[in-house]
Amino acid sequence: MTITAANLIGSKPSNLGDATFSAINPLTAEELEPTFANATLDEVHNACLAAEKAFTPYRSLTPVQRASFLDAIADEIIALDNTLVQRAMLETGLPEPRIIGERGRTVGQLKAFARLIEDGSWLDVRIDTAQPDRAPVPKPDLRRTRIPLGPVAVFGASNFPLAFSVAGGDTAAALAAGCPVVVKAHPAHPGTSQLVAQAMLTAAEKTNMPEGVFSLLHGTTHEVGKKMVSHHSIKAVGFTGSLRGGRALFDLAAARPEPIPVFAEMGSCNPVFILPGAVAERADAIAEGLAGSVTLGAGQFCTNPGLTILDQSEESTALVAATARLLDESAAGTAVHHTIKDAYDASLAAAANTENVATLAHSDNPGAHESTSVHPAILQTDGDNYMNAETLKHEIFGPSTLVVRCNDKQQTLDVARQLEGHLTATIHGNEDDLAEYAELIQILETKVGRIIFNGYPTGVEVCPSMYHGGPYPASSDARETSVGTGAITRFTRPVCYQDFPQANLPVELQDGNPSQIWRLVNGNLEK
Amino acid sequence: MTITAANLIGSKPSNLGDATFSAINPLTAEELEPTFANATLDEVHNACLAAEKAFTPYRSLTPVQRASFLDAIADEIIALDNTLVQRAMLETGLPEPRIIGERGRTVGQLKAFARLIEDGSWLDVRIDTAQPDRAPVPKPDLRRTRIPLGPVAVFGASNFPLAFSVAGGDTAAALAAGCPVVVKAHPAHPGTSQLVAQAMLTAAEKTNMPEGVFSLLHGTTHEVGKKMVSHHSIKAVGFTGSLRGGRALFDLAAARPEPIPVFAEMGSCNPVFILPGAVAERADAIAEGLAGSVTLGAGQFCTNPGLTILDQSEESTALVAATARLLDESAAGTAVHHTIKDAYDASLAAAANTENVATLAHSDNPGAHESTSVHPAILQTDGDNYMNAETLKHEIFGPSTLVVRCNDKQQTLDVARQLEGHLTATIHGNEDDLAEYAELIQILETKVGRIIFNGYPTGVEVCPSMYHGGPYPASSDARETSVGTGAITRFTRPVCYQDFPQANLPVELQDGNPSQIWRLVNGNLEK
Repeated sequence: MTITAANLIGSKPSNLGDATFSAINPLTAEELEPTFANATLDEVHNACLAAEKAFTPYRSLTPVQRASFLDAIADEIIALDNTLVQRAMLETGLPEPRIIGERGRTVGQLKAFARLIEDGSWLDVRIDTAQPDRAPVPKPDLRRTRIPLGPVAVFGASNFPLAFSVAGGDTAAALAAGCPVVVKAHPAHPGTSQLVAQAMLTAAEKTNMPEGVFSLLHGTTHEVGKKMVSHHSIKAVGFTGSLRGGRALFDLAAARPEPIPVFAEMGSCNPVFILPGAVAERADAIAEGLAGSVTLGAGQFCTNPGLTILDQSEESTALVAATARLLDESAAGTAVHHTIKDAYDASLAAAANTENVATLAHSDNPGAHESTSVHPAILQTDGDNYMNAETLKHEIFGPSTLVVRCNDKQQTLDVARQLEGHLTATIHGNEDDLAEYAELIQILETKVGRIIFNGYPTGVEVCPSMYHGGPYPASSDARETSVGTGAITRFTRPVCYQDFPQANLPVELQDGNPSQIWRLVNGNLEK
Repeated sequence: MTITAANLIGSKPSNLGDATFSAINPLTAEELEPTFANATLDEVHNACLAAEKAFTPYRSLTPVQRASFLDAIADEIIALDNTLVQRAMLETGLPEPRIIGERGRTVGQLKAFARLIEDGSWLDVRIDTAQPDRAPVPKPDLRRTRIPLGPVAVFGASNFPLAFSVAGGDTAAALAAGCPVVVKAHPAHPGTSQLVAQAMLTAAEKTNMPEGVFSLLHGTTHEVGKKMVSHHSIKAVGFTGSLRGGRALFDLAAARPEPIPVFAEMGSCNPVFILPGAVAERADAIAEGLAGSVTLGAGQFCTNPGLTILDQSEESTALVAATARLLDESAAGTAVHHTIKDAYDASLAAAANTENVATLAHSDNPGAHESTSVHPAILQTDGDNYMNAETLKHEIFGPSTLVVRCNDKQQTLDVARQLEGHLTATIHGNEDDLAEYAELIQILETKVGRIIFNGYPTGVEVCPSMYHGGPYPASSDARETSVGTGAITRFTRPVCYQDFPQANLPVELQDGNPSQIWRLVNGNLEK
């Protein structure tokens, strides 16, 4: 399969614009063929209208039909084989095993949502049957299921060219829910995006999906995304990226005549608390695990541990020193795009130049190309300084962590209390630590989405129990997850039928439970 | 019990302000004793801070303890007996049976949420156990439950002095979830609000709830509410009222440094489609039912049928004429506040004065007092005119309906397609109608929250299957309901524990299911 380098309005290639761009190989700084054209505002409009037209026919399909589409997308992505793997490697500089692993996750997500909707229990069906003799007024028959919101705009993230991109989690969840999708491809990997989009359109054709169920738009400016989010046909937004970008889309969506929900996952510092017992028992192992987590994927994970909190003991000093040695010896990572390297260097320098912040290590090992090399680093400050310095509280996206040394338990709890919202927090400790620091868990519950014990925050399972989200600014809607099968509810809402004839009810609400799903009937959960 | 006429910051009366106001008896236009003082901005701040302080101790209580608080509130409301009923009647002009019925609903809601949290299955617990041998990386143990968001600001509605007010559905849901509540009392019924608030504080004392779990603030200006929604301690907002009011709070909340969710239920026209078969079979019954639904509670229901759609047949003309006769003969209703009467008269006049709109009836039967009398009315226009006249698309809050006569099925469907979001839609029809108008149901599903067949939209059951909400502008977040036990999720979010020791997990996540609740364990729902 070749890259045809066009915006795709439904199944139709469209290149109305003059402004073109190319992907850049981050390992060599060379431009990659072919060139892509930014979508014009007319093309955005056309894609959104096509999605609106597709909405009724698409949502009217059976869940089994929609599942066959998701399965076919997975199959077509696998069928791209080495073409996709090589292109993704060229555009992101990520190594082959990582791309293959991420492809597996992407395909797995699509299939997980396919199985979820085939079952149907996720619809949270609730039925309360009529009581015609109830006094003073009869009780009507009420039956509730969930329906899709409408066309969804999805923004591909730079750091996961497959799993959080064109056919990533947001797209899979929206399509599973019954929503057509318009994707804004991330300009760092347009060829990978194009290949996946073509695979999706092949799958749509093979499974007879309505025209317009999926469109792909390219764009290097904010205009394409702003137009998508403002378009009246779009009813929800999925975004993974920076706080600035996510907040801008959130503000735009909230200011619409008809506001729409924005599910933005906007990054996080993922504080790691290393408690005294853990320091005493496992300092070397923790130093190794922490350094590995900091440098994983060149630090380009939203769950990267950017903040490490320990006490002032000599043992803690040794643990930090060991971590610093490992980071100092680490190879430079390659950012997927030079803008990420530039932002990393700038935000790291701003933190390092803050008063009372020491740079314990900043590796100078050479990377593949200076324009994209991100050099692992570890900074250190004390609890007082951290709590007073606003510049230290922002995410530094890349392979670094800021160590905060606290005087005592009280200061450790104060640092925790002062945290903004984050995706995760991690506690390293033993049984005694947990007894002593019980309050820490209680505080962290209100600050983050996921709390990890004696592990590392990088690595996000795709499963029903996953919650990838957190209080603002980790995400724009803490009530929802962007990873795991729970992500489907974001793109749906309840609908309730009162006193409807059986034949006119959706099948999942009919007497006798023909779909054989879990339903809450007169207060009892049954199948 | 007497009305002490003070803002209540937690359990402490507080009257720092100079600006006072009184309730007005809508039946006589007389001021009622005592006077109330508007809360100052300092008092708002104090109430929000008290709620923040109460959050950790309150959410740390067991569900059974929180349920005992809700039950005690219900008991204390009942204990107010005739004092509460008489005061509510004086302040709203609503008749005794209605107040007693609404009290029953309010108490029922509190008890329904108490039973819901005692059971705990609503937490949507999901557990995926570890697979230490999984390749290439071990799978961690992940367990997910829900936790409360934090202090909630609730705005009492004018039209339901008990069920959507101080101890109404929003408050019950938030308290059940584990969120302290700060209520802004509606200035139309401050004495009723005060009595209920005192009952709540008595219940809080009897059940040993933390100080600050509940506060009541009075205010006749927007400043009190704006300060509440802007306050950093407040993490979510429940509102029932006008589109203008709800949107203003939504905009304010979205513009905060930390945006928070606003669950605003903002009214609706609740279109009623009367199809040809129903007209032929049941014209008189429908006219009677419709007129009764239009005038119920002086038209002061968010589900009031403000829009009625029929074809141009003679039979339909007769049905409309019969409805007009009934409305013309109806007694004037008494609005709970003169501002509602003023808004009703103004918006009815604006619609009636729109080109090609006929006033079929506008009852001139006298009401209790001219300052609050709302006179039932029925207007009529045609499909083309309706679709082109923006002035006809807004809710007229009061006892009126606008009849839209459509040329044919196509135009009926076009009118449906052009609808904004509404809480409900109603279809009157027989089996043939439903076969012929299958597309109408499909369209209405995307436009409203609840579809009623051969009934009337007024009357909202409180049960698990209820969905009281709808696409904007019916509500600001269509994914959630404001009535029924499902309303609790609004004030909660997931939290996920990875590889946690059993002893440090919340009880609902522990092995062996000590809470005996429904849980999704490794993909299987089990108890």
